Amino acid sequence: MEGTTMSGDAKPLRADARRNQVRVLEAAEVVLARDGLSASMRAIAQQAGVGLGTIYRHFPTQEALYQAIIIERMRRLIAEADALGASDDPGAAFFLFLTRIVDNAKQKKALADGLADAGVDHKTGLSGIRREMRDAIRALLTRAQRSGTVRDDLDMPEVLALLSAVCMAAERNQWSAGLQSSALALLFDGFRPHRER
Amino acid sequence: MEGTTMSGDAKPLRADARRNQVRVLEAAEVVLARDGLSASMRAIAQQAGVGLGTIYRHFPTQEALYQAIIIERMRRLIAEADALGASDDPGAAFFLFLTRIVDNAKQKKALADGLADAGVDHKTGLSGIRREMRDAIRALLTRAQRSGTVRDDLDMPEVLALLSAVCMAAERNQWSAGLQSSALALLFDGFRPHRER
Repeated sequence: MEGTTMSGDAKPLRADARRNQVRVLEAAEVVLARDGLSASMRAIAQQAGVGLGTIYRHFPTQEALYQAIIIERMRRLIAEADALGASDDPGAAFFLFLTRIVDNAKQKKALADGLADAGVDHKTGLSGIRREMRDAIRALLTRAQRSGTVRDDLDMPEVLALLSAVCMAAERNQWSAGLQSSALALLFDGFRPHRER
Repeated sequence: MEGTTMSGDAKPLRADARRNQVRVLEAAEVVLARDGLSASMRAIAQQAGVGLGTIYRHFPTQEALYQAIIIERMRRLIAEADALGASDDPGAAFFLFLTRIVDNAKQKKALADGLADAGVDHKTGLSGIRREMRDAIRALLTRAQRSGTVRDDLDMPEVLALLSAVCMAAERNQWSAGLQSSALALLFDGFRPHRER
C-alpha cells in the first residue's frame, strides 16, 4: 500500500503521513460506532492520540473525513475481492463477495446520509473507488462464469441493479440476518445456470 | 362494487355518492399526471365537473384524497390478481402479477411521498388494503407452487422482501424498461424449482 492515497486524485503521501491518516481513520470508525454521525473531530483526535491540527491537515472538514472512511471501507472490501479471486470455488467466491457488500451497505449508508445532509454529492468524490469496486465484481463474475457455476448470460448491469436493490431494502426495511440470508440465496439461485426449467 | 367503500372502516356509500367519488378519483389521476403533487383541489373539481364542496365532502383534505387514490389503485391491482387466479399457467400468472406491482410502484411512490411530506403515516390508513394485497400475492404463489412452476420452499417473507427491494430500486435508480425486465427475469428464475445445481 506504500505510496497509495485515499483517493485517486490526491498526491502520494509519505509513509509516516499515511500512517497518521490510517490511525485517524481507525479512530474515527471507533468514535462513529460509539457516537454516530454527531461524533466530533475533537473526540476523534483524542481517540487517535493526535492533535486536532493533524486531523484537519488530513481532513479539512468532517465531510472529507466521512468520505475518506467510505473509501477506506470500500478499499478493504476490494482487497477481500482480490483475495477471493484466488478461490478454487469461483461461484462461491462471487456469491460471498456480493453478500459482503450487502453486509457493509448499512454502515456505509449512514455515512453517505451524513454527507448528503451536509449537501455533499458524495458519489462524485467516490467515482474512482466505485469504478474499482465494479471492476472487482466483474472479475469475480467472469471467473465464476468461466467455471460454469454462474450463468453466461448474467451481465453487470443486472448484477449491480439487483445488488443495489437488496442493499437498499436490507437497510431501509431492517432485514433480519435470517431474511437477508434466505433472500440472497433465492437471488443467487437465479444467477446460476439451470439444466431445465 | 355496489355498496363497497374506499376503506374498510368507512360506512357504505349510496350508489350516486360512490359514482361521484369514483369520478373525483379518476379526475384526480388525470390532474396528478399533469400537475404532479402540486395539483390543486380546485383543478381536480374542474376536471371532474363537480363543485369544490362535493370534493371536500368525500375527501376533507388533500391527504385523504391521495390516500383514496392509492387505495383505489391497489384495489385495481388486486382485481387483476383475482383475474389471474383463473389462469391456466399459474407460474406465469404469479410472475406477471409481481411485475405489475413493480410497474405500479413508481407512481404509488410519488403519492406516498406526498403523504409523508404532509406528515401522514400513510401505512396506517392502508393496513387493510395492504393485507388484501398480501393475500392476493399469497393466493397466486400457492397456486403456482401447486402447479410445480414455483419452488415449494419459497415463502411470503422472502417474496415480499425481494419485491419491495426491486420496487425501491426501480423507482430510486430510474431503471429502464429493459433493465427492469431482465432483472425481474433473473429474480423469477431464482423462484423456480431446479432439477440440479
